Amino acid sequence: MKILVLGGDGYCGWPTALHLSDAGHDIVIVDNFSRRQIDEELGARSLTPIAGLTERLRAWHDVTGRPIGLEVGGLLDWEFLSGVFRRHDPEAVVHFAEQRSAPYSMIDRQHAVYTQHNNVIGTLNVLFAIRELATDCHLVKLGTMGEYGTPNIDIEEGFIEIEHNGRRDVLPFPKQAGSFYHLTKVHDSNNMMFACKVWGLRATDLNQGVVYGTVTLQTERDSRLVNRFDYDDVYGTALNRFCAEAAIDYPLTVYGKGGQTRGFLDIRDTVRCINLAILNPPERGEYRVFNQFTEQFSVEQLAQLVVEAARKLGITAQIEHLANPRMEAEEHYYNAKHTRLLDLGLEPYYLSDSLLDSLLNIAMEHRERVDPDVIAPRVTWSGAEAGELEAQVAA
Amino acid sequence: MKILVLGGDGYCGWPTALHLSDAGHDIVIVDNFSRRQIDEELGARSLTPIAGLTERLRAWHDVTGRPIGLEVGGLLDWEFLSGVFRRHDPEAVVHFAEQRSAPYSMIDRQHAVYTQHNNVIGTLNVLFAIRELATDCHLVKLGTMGEYGTPNIDIEEGFIEIEHNGRRDVLPFPKQAGSFYHLTKVHDSNNMMFACKVWGLRATDLNQGVVYGTVTLQTERDSRLVNRFDYDDVYGTALNRFCAEAAIDYPLTVYGKGGQTRGFLDIRDTVRCINLAILNPPERGEYRVFNQFTEQFSVEQLAQLVVEAARKLGITAQIEHLANPRMEAEEHYYNAKHTRLLDLGLEPYYLSDSLLDSLLNIAMEHRERVDPDVIAPRVTWSGAEAGELEAQVAA
Repeated sequence: MKILVLGGDGYCGWPTALHLSDAGHDIVIVDNFSRRQIDEELGARSLTPIAGLTERLRAWHDVTGRPIGLEVGGLLDWEFLSGVFRRHDPEAVVHFAEQRSAPYSMIDRQHAVYTQHNNVIGTLNVLFAIRELATDCHLVKLGTMGEYGTPNIDIEEGFIEIEHNGRRDVLPFPKQAGSFYHLTKVHDSNNMMFACKVWGLRATDLNQGVVYGTVTLQTERDSRLVNRFDYDDVYGTALNRFCAEAAIDYPLTVYGKGGQTRGFLDIRDTVRCINLAILNPPERGEYRVFNQFTEQFSVEQLAQLVVEAARKLGITAQIEHLANPRMEAEEHYYNAKHTRLLDLGLEPYYLSDSLLDSLLNIAMEHRERVDPDVIAPRVTWSGAEAGELEAQVAA
Repeated sequence: MKILVLGGDGYCGWPTALHLSDAGHDIVIVDNFSRRQIDEELGARSLTPIAGLTERLRAWHDVTGRPIGLEVGGLLDWEFLSGVFRRHDPEAVVHFAEQRSAPYSMIDRQHAVYTQHNNVIGTLNVLFAIRELATDCHLVKLGTMGEYGTPNIDIEEGFIEIEHNGRRDVLPFPKQAGSFYHLTKVHDSNNMMFACKVWGLRATDLNQGVVYGTVTLQTERDSRLVNRFDYDDVYGTALNRFCAEAAIDYPLTVYGKGGQTRGFLDIRDTVRCINLAILNPPERGEYRVFNQFTEQFSVEQLAQLVVEAARKLGITAQIEHLANPRMEAEEHYYNAKHTRLLDLGLEPYYLSDSLLDSLLNIAMEHRERVDPDVIAPRVTWSGAEAGELEAQVAA
């Protein structure tokens, strides 16, 4: 199948492009390298040494004999985007090409505006490109479990049947996003649902949980194929960051009480979920939502799992509860459904000792690349300086 | 109270600015004249001859002795907007400054992108301006009843208590907006709710119904104060458009079956609702929603009321059911709550024979200004040409 992978140079996009190519699809990556540019802005870099995209693509061709196409540009540029659709006439579009860090979106006004403009208008352009140039094309769009927030009821997959005053309807599940980034995914979901309804497009919205891991069956075939591993305060997410911290004897940075519970998944499942969605497209006009995660953990639980795994490798890791830079419930009910991808055949890689071992070993291997100055949170939701927060908590 | 009226040159903004000035507030209008520019683009104009804003403000000063300030610029321009906040240090901001036509947002990609960018980023800038420069300021933001769509359950005011699998929570009411314009109001609502939560802002989201009428107690004091009256296919809304049509012997253009039911209100209630919201601000950190309308009607009912009122004035008006250019349910359940503004003391102007008389007389007075070529719908939700739609229906 001819597939565009928008944002195919990023943490999830790159291994997805390789997995889909390996599965026999004809892949074209579309990327403007904004993620690499943001690394420069933040003075951060991947724990793992990643090759440039051209070198990555050459390596994939060397190893497999399969070419992956490349189009360099951004989704805000309609002339570029419409040209890409005309040149490739895709049957599916996998859309990762959004600014995906919550802290980045909360740095200040410019970063909030950049994130909302880039994500919402970029996706709007993709919807119009499909409508005008590839109406039968299946849009597989990455949403986030963070769209739902932490309601005091079970979280369903996109829609919920509500009984109210003696009447019933199935309605979009109420959203309570926790950052300007997460809000863009809510906005995108609303725009996509409407576009499917009025234009008969087909779309799958994958409300993904927090991804951990870095290696997939494809990325480990050659050192030039190695994937990103973010550990910094802005792009690093819970489990991966904890492993990098353990590797350099930095305390594991748990925000607040650590009772924040979320859905998590292994990056090897991310890439398989995308292919499952592609192989089982919705009907024309259908907007469907899958909750894409495999297990729930609290942040504290994850930190403790890393402490234990590190101990077995002879590393003494300690947990430090920092003042929470975010505004979020630290103890709450959480029960999110995630059966639709299992129904399509997903057999998850559950979080295991061997995965934790592998991640810790990768972090140890590259520990000299870790910069301890980009780990402590610098961005707060309230706008207070991170130092002020610590003082408030100490007082 | 020192109040900014963003979009104070528009159909609702202008009479609101006058009403608030008349009520003793100190008003500054902020406008970039985008609405007048769009009239040029569409080859349409207000049925009523409206003066330029400078002349309008001079007239108000002549008539009342009260000045209204003016700042010319747009909300996307942060340097301008932050300067306005610094110069005026507002206690309340009334925000009408959005592209507010659903058909305009559906013309094509550029118009959808313009509408979403202008509205969402403009409102985001207003939220940051309040946070950074006037944290105690009350944001009174115009939303729309169209955010809710037409669910098969009663519509509550912003939030709904949901019981699900034996647990309960009060959550944002599910949204099902019906155009890229209506979607911007949903996006704004989500952004505002979040900003109130994390920064402790105070905001009132007024989900307004369809406004009819043109005259208020203030606009009728001088001919230079006269308000807009839109009747064209893009900006004209049901009741006002029907009156203009009756005045030139044009059939009343009902889209589809006409069973589409919505909340409506008199523009004299719009201006009073805004003042009620301002005089009763929410607490810091509170995001509240009022459904701002006074009566429900179906489009067919409204058309029939206009036919009857016209008959009494000796005008024979006829209803024509056009192929519906929109994608919407034409027969549906509709019961929307609207008690919160009544609780604050609103005594509505219900739709009356005298209001219909007055509107029809205004339309008759200016009937030579009506251009029959801008009445039939030119914009369709499906993207089909309007002519094709008619052919489909006839077939």
